[in-house]
Amino acid sequence: MRPSGRNLSDMRPISIETGVMRHAEGSCLIRCGGTEVLCTASLEEKCPPFLKGSGQGWVTAEYGMLPRATNSRNKREAALGKQSGRSQEIQRLIGRSLRAGVDRRALGERQIIIDCDVIQADGGTRCAAITGGWVALRLAVNKLMKAGLINIDPIIDHVAAVSCGIYAGQAVMDLDYAEDSEAGTDGNFVLTGAGRLIEVQMSAEGSPFSRDQMNQLMDLAEAGVAQLVAAQKAAIA
Amino acid sequence: MRPSGRNLSDMRPISIETGVMRHAEGSCLIRCGGTEVLCTASLEEKCPPFLKGSGQGWVTAEYGMLPRATNSRNKREAALGKQSGRSQEIQRLIGRSLRAGVDRRALGERQIIIDCDVIQADGGTRCAAITGGWVALRLAVNKLMKAGLINIDPIIDHVAAVSCGIYAGQAVMDLDYAEDSEAGTDGNFVLTGAGRLIEVQMSAEGSPFSRDQMNQLMDLAEAGVAQLVAAQKAAIA
Amino acid sequence: MRPSGRNLSDMRPISIETGVMRHAEGSCLIRCGGTEVLCTASLEEKCPPFLKGSGQGWVTAEYGMLPRATNSRNKREAALGKQSGRSQEIQRLIGRSLRAGVDRRALGERQIIIDCDVIQADGGTRCAAITGGWVALRLAVNKLMKAGLINIDPIIDHVAAVSCGIYAGQAVMDLDYAEDSEAGTDGNFVLTGAGRLIEVQMSAEGSPFSRDQMNQLMDLAEAGVAQLVAAQKAAIA
Amino acid sequence: MRPSGRNLSDMRPISIETGVMRHAEGSCLIRCGGTEVLCTASLEEKCPPFLKGSGQGWVTAEYGMLPRATNSRNKREAALGKQSGRSQEIQRLIGRSLRAGVDRRALGERQIIIDCDVIQADGGTRCAAITGGWVALRLAVNKLMKAGLINIDPIIDHVAAVSCGIYAGQAVMDLDYAEDSEAGTDGNFVLTGAGRLIEVQMSAEGSPFSRDQMNQLMDLAEAGVAQLVAAQKAAIA
Amino acid sequence: MRPSGRNLSDMRPISIETGVMRHAEGSCLIRCGGTEVLCTASLEEKCPPFLKGSGQGWVTAEYGMLPRATNSRNKREAALGKQSGRSQEIQRLIGRSLRAGVDRRALGERQIIIDCDVIQADGGTRCAAITGGWVALRLAVNKLMKAGLINIDPIIDHVAAVSCGIYAGQAVMDLDYAEDSEAGTDGNFVLTGAGRLIEVQMSAEGSPFSRDQMNQLMDLAEAGVAQLVAAQKAAIA
Amino acid sequence: MRPSGRNLSDMRPISIETGVMRHAEGSCLIRCGGTEVLCTASLEEKCPPFLKGSGQGWVTAEYGMLPRATNSRNKREAALGKQSGRSQEIQRLIGRSLRAGVDRRALGERQIIIDCDVIQADGGTRCAAITGGWVALRLAVNKLMKAGLINIDPIIDHVAAVSCGIYAGQAVMDLDYAEDSEAGTDGNFVLTGAGRLIEVQMSAEGSPFSRDQMNQLMDLAEAGVAQLVAAQKAAIA
Repeated sequence: MRPSGRNLSDMRPISIETGVMRHAEGSCLIRCGGTEVLCTASLEEKCPPFLKGSGQGWVTAEYGMLPRATNSRNKREAALGKQSGRSQEIQRLIGRSLRAGVDRRALGERQIIIDCDVIQADGGTRCAAITGGWVALRLAVNKLMKAGLINIDPIIDHVAAVSCGIYAGQAVMDLDYAEDSEAGTDGNFVLTGAGRLIEVQMSAEGSPFSRDQMNQLMDLAEAGVAQLVAAQKAAIA
Repeated sequence: MRPSGRNLSDMRPISIETGVMRHAEGSCLIRCGGTEVLCTASLEEKCPPFLKGSGQGWVTAEYGMLPRATNSRNKREAALGKQSGRSQEIQRLIGRSLRAGVDRRALGERQIIIDCDVIQADGGTRCAAITGGWVALRLAVNKLMKAGLINIDPIIDHVAAVSCGIYAGQAVMDLDYAEDSEAGTDGNFVLTGAGRLIEVQMSAEGSPFSRDQMNQLMDLAEAGVAQLVAAQKAAIA
Repeated sequence: MRPSGRNLSDMRPISIETGVMRHAEGSCLIRCGGTEVLCTASLEEKCPPFLKGSGQGWVTAEYGMLPRATNSRNKREAALGKQSGRSQEIQRLIGRSLRAGVDRRALGERQIIIDCDVIQADGGTRCAAITGGWVALRLAVNKLMKAGLINIDPIIDHVAAVSCGIYAGQAVMDLDYAEDSEAGTDGNFVLTGAGRLIEVQMSAEGSPFSRDQMNQLMDLAEAGVAQLVAAQKAAIA
Repeated sequence: MRPSGRNLSDMRPISIETGVMRHAEGSCLIRCGGTEVLCTASLEEKCPPFLKGSGQGWVTAEYGMLPRATNSRNKREAALGKQSGRSQEIQRLIGRSLRAGVDRRALGERQIIIDCDVIQADGGTRCAAITGGWVALRLAVNKLMKAGLINIDPIIDHVAAVSCGIYAGQAVMDLDYAEDSEAGTDGNFVLTGAGRLIEVQMSAEGSPFSRDQMNQLMDLAEAGVAQLVAAQKAAIA
Repeated sequence: MRPSGRNLSDMRPISIETGVMRHAEGSCLIRCGGTEVLCTASLEEKCPPFLKGSGQGWVTAEYGMLPRATNSRNKREAALGKQSGRSQEIQRLIGRSLRAGVDRRALGERQIIIDCDVIQADGGTRCAAITGGWVALRLAVNKLMKAGLINIDPIIDHVAAVSCGIYAGQAVMDLDYAEDSEAGTDGNFVLTGAGRLIEVQMSAEGSPFSRDQMNQLMDLAEAGVAQLVAAQKAAIA
Repeated sequence: MRPSGRNLSDMRPISIETGVMRHAEGSCLIRCGGTEVLCTASLEEKCPPFLKGSGQGWVTAEYGMLPRATNSRNKREAALGKQSGRSQEIQRLIGRSLRAGVDRRALGERQIIIDCDVIQADGGTRCAAITGGWVALRLAVNKLMKAGLINIDPIIDHVAAVSCGIYAGQAVMDLDYAEDSEAGTDGNFVLTGAGRLIEVQMSAEGSPFSRDQMNQLMDLAEAGVAQLVAAQKAAIA
């Protein structure tokens, strides 16, 4: 019944390749089915002005998509002269989600910028960006710790995300583009390694949904994120 | 225990004054405690280009805040030369939420633009904008129907929204600014008059939250929206 | 003969409601007939860079209009990505006019920003903004003096403004939109409480005008501003 | 008493050199003392969209200043990414003033754009732009008439402008930069060849001014514009 | 003597992987040493407005660089709100170079947009973009021909580019970043498969250069482009 | 055979008038046939941030064109809200070329900005801007030296530029617009007074060119720049 032939609770194949960028303090290329996102962590040894003197650091994110990541070419945001509302919304979500897994006091007055650039898109790019962004962040923090610049690990737990939705009336795991564009309800779920919730966003694209459906999506999300966290662990091992 | 002295499940006083704008096809000033949002509906007798020939209409929203709606003055977005990411995210949410309560085919090829301008802010402005925006939309559609331009009511159900969150460890209804800025978890819930879900957004500002907490917030939201829908009904009566 | 039935030298009803904004150091809602402008004064305890070390303060203004303040919706300037030439011209006029009534040395090195947001427009918005802006400024300065931050009152005199024009060949007081859009000549007059001139702007929209007509408009303006100053006095009493 | 040694009612030497631009339909370089403005008229054989089908044409203006037209270099507006509020205000004034001297119905559905670029600035650039802009417009219209594209002369009368002000307590003609930057009151006056008023703008830079002073400035302006109109006549002869 | 240990006339290893993007009509990832550029060709079945009715098509290019392609992170152009002058200059060069190898009449009234996104940068990104961009273009045109949409091959010859420069006083082939940042003279050479010249750009970064040095760089460029053309042939075989 | 009737190796008449701008530290109006560029040098007694503490100065350039410098009016870049890619590319070239003739250490930590504004365009504007820009720079540096602010002349040699191209199959000197728009190959050559090369840019607009043609263009350029340098010498004498 799913366009890809997957079972309702099947995720797409996940792969996380680390160290793909020579210059970045941390990097990975994450693939979730046909979605590919390049995530890099850039360390800056000063925090944003609003945190000066606070003893706390900052983690933020930027999100972009190559013009031909999608079926028909999107105009280049740099050429248009601004990031779309969608891009801004996504990068705010990524930054907020990753910060929720970080002890910013332990990080100290420095900033880590996570760039998430979608090379190819087949649904779930923001979730892949969060899952891959966490890996890039983890690798950059490892470098900081190895260099003795920080002593207490500022990363509290894994952070990973999956999208689930109501497709053809049924709750399905890890929507691809074909499903996403048809889904009645679409949700993004950001959870910790321990299965606690960081961000829940559910949206009725067609008709409203019930609490029961919401709970089915939550169940799927918990199972999906567990698999993503396992993939993160394997990647950074 | 709440800064305002309210009980955990108390909403702030709601008032919805309709017909406050002489020119708009529909308008109201909604007050939720210290939050005041002016909502207007503007009817355009043509739909956006991407719907031309589809037989369907469109409902969209724009959100703004007066510079001194808040305790310290915010820079005017028009002077800065762009809407903030936050404003864009909010107006996308308002538009999406209101569209979920509309049969766009029954609306026909026309567009209704809902402007939500925050006059004063004390938390919950996006929720007040959705609740008040629906009233403005309802009034504009009434006008269309009275004029015989449409025959079938395109409004399927009420749409209203409330924010709830975990404050000082407890689930509380209808966060005001003092609570919102301290809340560990903050959620926005958009529901229909029938209590079905349109949009659920929960975000851990501090530590992650549990499914149990999530359910408590959902329970509060259902109760809160019921009160808002009653206020909408009274306003348009 | 006037669309509103007013006599040639009649102003529209004026009302100035103060203290309408909880956060601002000074605020009022001014209504001149169907025109409503919300004016707030925001105090900043530092002056703009070009005055640093000069011992002088600054008063400046920003002007905006809600999209549906007018009969047909105007595009939101923040969404367009810039203030129109008209908005900029008006806010420059408001700032210049209010500064002409202030001893900037007595104000000291601080800045007061006057935001004038048009809620509803029926002609004369820039004049209402000046008249109401002065009230907001006055209230903010009162606060500064009460707090002992300044000792000498930096406000030299009232500042108020009225528009007059040649409508259907005759000089008329306080143009409303119906008149303004038809007027052959349109003037804005900013005067002090003592009746001295701060700014005079007359513009032939249709055919040029004579010095005689100019003098008739000046006479009306003097009478109109006197009434506005009386309304200001009543409002701040 | 004037920095330049001029008498109170003396204008600076005026020169208007026509035909200075090879491509433009009309052009002149106007010099008023040390102020030099290059004015060109560009004809477009279609009117702006809002006039389509109206049978009327349009005259509009754009204003710019070379970065080093002034004593210290100004940032290039194109590099800054926008025209300043001052530039926009000036070009709106130029366009409005020139349109007041044109029968737009006789012009027909075409547009003439007047570009006024300040090569060197020594006060009074907007007035020189209006006076020179009218000459460029006149020459372009002559071309249209010679070509038989229009039969009735759409130019009703000359349009010229001068700035006068209160300097060191006295009304003086044609302010240069040294006077302008010190003037207590500064006015720009746009008149027709017949001496009727198109635009009057007076502004108290320091203390407010009286109606008596206003009348003195008006008297000067009438005398000054008469000289400018004579110079225009000589230039186009 | 070269930082990389290469001989003066050695190129870096070249690899061109085709078909790396699922959606694009043509694509490749080109690697020249540590420089990696992703090139995609997007076909649009309409030409730009200025060619409408001309019977000719268009080839254009856009260039971007991931923020962390370089040693220290560059600000994202989309977030800055504009493409840098450098990016615009490069994309104009790429477009011009590729068009020089295309018979735009044979292409017909359609447009091919070549996006060149630098994933990692180690000098020579614009040259890699041209060489890889041609491969993407070739593949997209192949598709058009296979589909029978065009009959005559619009591609006249290969187009490829290499940078050569004077490093430490000697002419060297294919500058990497370490050399480029120290080079006294830096040149970019775009040639056809037949060895004819499309674009030659030489620039003295330090002291001026001689015609003799220019000829040495030209000799290197001819040899280098021959190798690149061979790599292109292998890639599309 | 050339539209202007010139011989293949004839330049257009050159004139360089210095001291044309009252305020600038150096200025000239350069005319190359029908091309007229106003060049000014503005001295700033501080260098750009990236050179602070380096002991070195900076020379940079900005380029603009009056809207009606050309046959049909171009939109004003300031009104469009950005400089075109072409303008940015040209001003980068001018700045780079002039810096190549300057010992930035001898200049000291100050900046000279060269503004090049095209008053009329008939081909070769960037070359005229470089040639005239050098004169403005020379005059500004003379002033610095006369004032004793610098002791060692930071100007190493003349810098001048000419465009040559393949027109109707033959190499021709100093292209005018009629030739430039038809030329198969178009080159810009920046040389020193001693005839060494600073910048060489050749571009095949139509079919690719040969090394032999390239050498013919280089020969012409050497001869042309020698004449321009002579004109520079005469101008500053």
